[in-house]
Amino acid sequence: MSDTKVLLDYGSGGKASQRLISDLFKANFSNPVLNKLDDAAFLDIAGPLAMSTDTFTVDPIFFPGGDIGSLAVHGTVNDVAMLGARPLYLSCAYIIEEGLDFEVLERIVKSMARAAENAGVSIVTGDTKVVPKGMADKIFINTTGVGTMLAENHPSGESARPGDVVLVSGTMGDHGLTILAQREGLPLTTHVESDSTNLNHLTEALITEVGDIHVLRDPTRGGLATTLNEIAEASNVGITLEEERIPVHPGVKSGCDILGLDPLYLANEGKFLCILPEAKAEKALEVLRASEEGREACLVGRVSEDHAGKVVLQTPLGGKRLLNMLEGEQLPRIC
Amino acid sequence: MSDTKVLLDYGSGGKASQRLISDLFKANFSNPVLNKLDDAAFLDIAGPLAMSTDTFTVDPIFFPGGDIGSLAVHGTVNDVAMLGARPLYLSCAYIIEEGLDFEVLERIVKSMARAAENAGVSIVTGDTKVVPKGMADKIFINTTGVGTMLAENHPSGESARPGDVVLVSGTMGDHGLTILAQREGLPLTTHVESDSTNLNHLTEALITEVGDIHVLRDPTRGGLATTLNEIAEASNVGITLEEERIPVHPGVKSGCDILGLDPLYLANEGKFLCILPEAKAEKALEVLRASEEGREACLVGRVSEDHAGKVVLQTPLGGKRLLNMLEGEQLPRIC
Repeated sequence: MSDTKVLLDYGSGGKASQRLISDLFKANFSNPVLNKLDDAAFLDIAGPLAMSTDTFTVDPIFFPGGDIGSLAVHGTVNDVAMLGARPLYLSCAYIIEEGLDFEVLERIVKSMARAAENAGVSIVTGDTKVVPKGMADKIFINTTGVGTMLAENHPSGESARPGDVVLVSGTMGDHGLTILAQREGLPLTTHVESDSTNLNHLTEALITEVGDIHVLRDPTRGGLATTLNEIAEASNVGITLEEERIPVHPGVKSGCDILGLDPLYLANEGKFLCILPEAKAEKALEVLRASEEGREACLVGRVSEDHAGKVVLQTPLGGKRLLNMLEGEQLPRIC
Repeated sequence: MSDTKVLLDYGSGGKASQRLISDLFKANFSNPVLNKLDDAAFLDIAGPLAMSTDTFTVDPIFFPGGDIGSLAVHGTVNDVAMLGARPLYLSCAYIIEEGLDFEVLERIVKSMARAAENAGVSIVTGDTKVVPKGMADKIFINTTGVGTMLAENHPSGESARPGDVVLVSGTMGDHGLTILAQREGLPLTTHVESDSTNLNHLTEALITEVGDIHVLRDPTRGGLATTLNEIAEASNVGITLEEERIPVHPGVKSGCDILGLDPLYLANEGKFLCILPEAKAEKALEVLRASEEGREACLVGRVSEDHAGKVVLQTPLGGKRLLNMLEGEQLPRIC
């Protein structure tokens, strides 16, 4: 772009908007659907579908392990995947604060393009609004995704059953602690980075190679504890977690100890939990561990009829405590 | 809600978020798809589809003729409709500035619910982010819509042909002038209000009762002049408009005269243009004028092989001038 900063003109719908679309968005996201630039995108897709939306306001916009652009793709791709669907198309809508460096926008757009390619999704339609300086903080991105269902009985938070087991695909809390450490300039002795990544290939492998998946969820805001509480309530079952089985990266653990945080309430952006019949657990762990994203997958808990609607944590010393849903805000602008 | 202001907690993903979702969003948008509250919505829909996204940052958030909530529904419903589709489902994602009055949020949500009902669409999935005070201005809303195609050959900006005529569904510039007058506190002698409304029932009537619609577009940011320039370029045709045939509300005209604005570059949010073979024009005008939204519909121009890629305005005195695409920003935060 000839300007070095994003000016209000670039959100006008006029010539400057056209240049932004052709020089930056079409150049990086190019695909036959997007390139038509009609008011809406024509999707040659068969139903039924999964649809999900998320807006990303993460601060800082660049962090170890990712940036707001890759996160905006991963987050929505993963939400579509969690319904048991194959994500295919994304829309992408920017709110940009006047004066943002074009170089920053370009890095973000290129990062989105890479993440979309990795997920196998196309960015097919978009929108850009530029607001006057001080009316937004740098950049916010909304992505909305659609995908086709992979199985007739799709996983749902309502479908956990007594006798099921709870698997997690890897360590908990990496994204949340990384963002907090970056933003507050915390000196951590061990390197931590966000786990932000696409999970759709892994969930598809589970659905097609293992099957009978009752629940898939990515524990983002509110963390594993909050997500499991939602499931316990929606399915009207009890869930018991074994604390020592829950994988936590040593750097995240020590960071949490210093800050008085619980990794079970911290956001993840590249992990999911899977609830399925115990008989399927071994095969599921095998499939998960065969991939880079799932190599630290573990069985961490069980579903029961007891204490329906509640999540109980069993400590290594044999104690039990109720794991409540997150009450307030542990950390704003985490995603 | 028990709080009177939206606090950061309401975007946490924890208990406060849950209350917001159940007490406000589910209460107003209730439908079986949304109510499941999974990470994604399950849509029992057949393809192919149209998909469109828009983020709304309009300032002020309440204005004569509408508000940011109704606008957020109309805008996306209309974009999906313009591809020749029947809009069915919307996602809705909020960015809320900490401290927004709940009463304001509730008015906006109720307005969205009414607009969605009028359009015949369901809001099926959503997201809420609350950012610290000063990091956004009150509220921004993204909506993304999907709908099923009504005809095999869908209208597109690439499909205008020499011999076609250009119809507009009503007066030009109402939304843009209203927002500007409100924001700047301009004393207008004549009442003006935004034309913001759903156009999907009207476009569906055109497609099913008239057919052979080459282009449908709603001239939002950049106005009629910019939208026609996009079409002239994409279709590689010339477009000639007759100035005296273009309907402009007297209040908009006098406001534009005072401010030195051109209504052909002002945004509309409840009007569309339709390009179709001349032989179909009479029937199309009849269908348009039979409805409240289209009662002032007119034939305003013609498509030719001459001056391909350009839009020419023929003045009442027989003069001609080139109508360029909007260069910069006439007005930020208009939608």
